[in-house]
Amino acid sequence: MTTIKQIRENSPIILNVSNMVTPQHVADAINFIGASPIMFDDIKEASDLVNISNALVINMGSSNDADVEKSIAAGKFANQKGIPVVIDPVAIGASKLRQDNFAKVAKEVKFDGVRGNAGELAFLADIEWNAQGIDAGNGDGDLHEIAETVAKKFDCITLLSGVTDVISDGSKTVEVKNGHHYFAVNVGCGDMLDGILGSCLAVDNSLDSAVLASSILSIAGEIAGGITDNLPYSFLSTVFNTLYQLTDEEITEFQKLG
Amino acid sequence: MTTIKQIRENSPIILNVSNMVTPQHVADAINFIGASPIMFDDIKEASDLVNISNALVINMGSSNDADVEKSIAAGKFANQKGIPVVIDPVAIGASKLRQDNFAKVAKEVKFDGVRGNAGELAFLADIEWNAQGIDAGNGDGDLHEIAETVAKKFDCITLLSGVTDVISDGSKTVEVKNGHHYFAVNVGCGDMLDGILGSCLAVDNSLDSAVLASSILSIAGEIAGGITDNLPYSFLSTVFNTLYQLTDEEITEFQKLG
Amino acid sequence: MTTIKQIRENSPIILNVSNMVTPQHVADAINFIGASPIMFDDIKEASDLVNISNALVINMGSSNDADVEKSIAAGKFANQKGIPVVIDPVAIGASKLRQDNFAKVAKEVKFDGVRGNAGELAFLADIEWNAQGIDAGNGDGDLHEIAETVAKKFDCITLLSGVTDVISDGSKTVEVKNGHHYFAVNVGCGDMLDGILGSCLAVDNSLDSAVLASSILSIAGEIAGGITDNLPYSFLSTVFNTLYQLTDEEITEFQKLG
Repeated sequence: MTTIKQIRENSPIILNVSNMVTPQHVADAINFIGASPIMFDDIKEASDLVNISNALVINMGSSNDADVEKSIAAGKFANQKGIPVVIDPVAIGASKLRQDNFAKVAKEVKFDGVRGNAGELAFLADIEWNAQGIDAGNGDGDLHEIAETVAKKFDCITLLSGVTDVISDGSKTVEVKNGHHYFAVNVGCGDMLDGILGSCLAVDNSLDSAVLASSILSIAGEIAGGITDNLPYSFLSTVFNTLYQLTDEEITEFQKLG
Repeated sequence: MTTIKQIRENSPIILNVSNMVTPQHVADAINFIGASPIMFDDIKEASDLVNISNALVINMGSSNDADVEKSIAAGKFANQKGIPVVIDPVAIGASKLRQDNFAKVAKEVKFDGVRGNAGELAFLADIEWNAQGIDAGNGDGDLHEIAETVAKKFDCITLLSGVTDVISDGSKTVEVKNGHHYFAVNVGCGDMLDGILGSCLAVDNSLDSAVLASSILSIAGEIAGGITDNLPYSFLSTVFNTLYQLTDEEITEFQKLG
Repeated sequence: MTTIKQIRENSPIILNVSNMVTPQHVADAINFIGASPIMFDDIKEASDLVNISNALVINMGSSNDADVEKSIAAGKFANQKGIPVVIDPVAIGASKLRQDNFAKVAKEVKFDGVRGNAGELAFLADIEWNAQGIDAGNGDGDLHEIAETVAKKFDCITLLSGVTDVISDGSKTVEVKNGHHYFAVNVGCGDMLDGILGSCLAVDNSLDSAVLASSILSIAGEIAGGITDNLPYSFLSTVFNTLYQLTDEEITEFQKLG
C-alpha cells in the first residue's frame, strides 16, 4: 500500500513529456507532493533521462510530430527499464491528428496508467458519450464501464477523473468521491493529476496507488475549497499549499471511497 | 449587445495560437469568464480544431515559421467558417522578422479584431510613436488616430489597450477609462485580453462586444486593485477570482466610457 | 556599486532563451524588479533583439537543437555588442546531450555569468559532488572551490545558489546567507535568479552586482517567508509582491554577507 509518506521518503524522479500550456503547474504538483519533476524537449536525451527516472508521464495536449517521437522513444526505454508509464489522451476526440498520434504511441508503448476525463476515456473505450453531452449527468454505471473497458483494452490502470473519480484495473473498480468544483475552473488540474499518478505508481505500481493519487488531489481540493470559498483562482494556490502538508492521516480521515 | 451572461451561457470554444510565455494565464482567463480554451501545436489539426471552435486568437509573441504557418492555416479555415479572428502583433516594432511574419499572416487572413498597445498599433498604423516615447503621456487624439487607422487599414475592430483603452471600428471610437496600473507589472495581461476579446466576439462580432471585452478585464482590475493594495502579484490572482464572478450589473455600475 | 534603484531607473531590457516550463515566472521576476523581459523563439530575429537588449540570459533547461543554435547566435551578437551573457546549465549532469549542448555554446560564446546549483556547477568544475549527495550537508570550502573553479574556467562571475549563495569571480568570493527553504519547493526560482542576475549585470557587470542579484531574491524570500509561514506556494506570490517593493535600504538592513 502506497502512502504519501513513502513518496516523500523515496522522492521518485518523474520524467514528463508535457504540453505547452501547463508545465509549470505539473512540475509544481510533482514537487509539492515530494517527488522530483524533469521535463525534456529533445529525443536525443530520452535514454539518459529515463535512466535516472522512476516514472514517465506523457501528456498529449500538444501533439506535434516531435512530441510523438519523444514519447515513443522515452516510452520504449521506460518499458524496457520496467518503470511505470502514464499517458493522458488530452482532447482526443477533438481531431484526427490526436487520434493518430495516440495510436502511434499506443502501438509502441505499454501503458501502466491512462488518465482522462469521461469524454476522453469514452472515446478510447469506443463508447458513445459526446452524444449524451459531457457535462450532463450520467449514470455511474457508464463511468464504470468506460474505466473498465479502457483498463482491459490497454491492460493498465485507468483513472477517470471528474466530480467522482473512477479508478479501475479492469477487474476491480473504486470510486473516490472527494473533490471540488473549482478544479474545473482552473486549467491544468487534470495534467497535475497525471503527474501525481506517475509519482504514486513510481512507488508502487498498483490500483491502490492510483486510488491514492486520486485521493491526494481530490482531498487537497476539498480542504482548499473550505478555506477559499468564492475565490476560485486562490483555490489552486491553496491546493498547492495543502499538497505540501497533506498527511496520510488526513487522507484516511477525509477519503470517501465507493 | 453582448453580455458576460451570454458568454457563460454559450461557453464559446476559443482556439489559440499562443506564445510560449503566457499560455497558462490566457487559458485561465478564457476559462474564468465562462468560455473554453483550446491550444494547438500542429498545423495538421488546424481544420478539425477550427471546426469545433467559435473564435480564433493568434498571439504573435513567439514568431517562428511553424507558428506563422499554423496561424495562416487556422486563420483561413476560420475565415471560411465565418468565425472571428483576433490577432496580437506582439512587439512588432522589435524585429524585422516580426514585421515579416505579421505581413505573411495579414496577406492570407482577414482579421476581425486587432489587439495591441499604443506602440504596436502605431507601428501598424505607420504613425510615429516610439519617437515620442511609449511611456510618456500622449494626447488622446493620437490614440484615437492610431486605433482608427488600424481599424480602417484591416477593416476590423481595434482594441488599443493602455491606461485608457481605445476601441474603434474605424468610424466609431469608444474609450474605456477603467483599469489599474498593476496590469503593466504582470506579464501576460495583454495576452489575456486577446483571449477575452476572442470570447466576446465569438458571441457577437461587434464594436460593443469589443468594448465589453475591454470593460471586463479593466473593471476586474479596478475591483482587484481595491482589494490588493500594495500587492502587485496578488493583484492578478484577485483579477482571476473577480473575472469568475463579475456580473453585467457590476460592469454597468463601474464602466467609465468616453 | 549597483542598486535596485538603478535597475528601476534604467529598466534594462533582458533577452531570454528560456526553457519551456518556467518562462512566465522568469518574465515576471525581471518585470517585478523593474527591468523588461523579452523572449524569442526564432534565430532569425537574434540580431534585432540583441540590438535593443542590455543583457542576454540563456537557460538550458530545454535543450533542443534550435535552442542551442538560437543561444549561439544571440550569444555571439551579445559578445560583439558588449552586453553581459548569463547562462544556466540546467541539470547538466543528467544527460550527455545537455553536456554536448553546453559545450557547443561555451565554445562560441563568452559568458559573463554562470548561475547554477552546487551539483550543476560541480559538474562544470569537474569536482566530484553527486557522489557526496547533492542534498547532504557539505563543507563551505567545497562550495567556494566549485564557484571559484567555474569562475576561473570561464573567466566569468559564478553564482552558486543554495541554502547559502556563493558568488565568485575567481579571486574574490562572497557568501549571501539570506534565503528561505520554500525556494526549493517552487519550480523555477533558480530560473528567476538567472533573470535577476542578467538584470543586475546589465546595469553594472561586476561581482558586487552579482552579489546584489543574489541578495535581492534571497532577501525577498526571507521577508516573504516571515509573512507566509506554512504556505509554501503562497510564499512565491509574496516573493513577487516583495520584489516589486524591495528597497536598497531593506537590502542593506537584511543582507547577511560572509
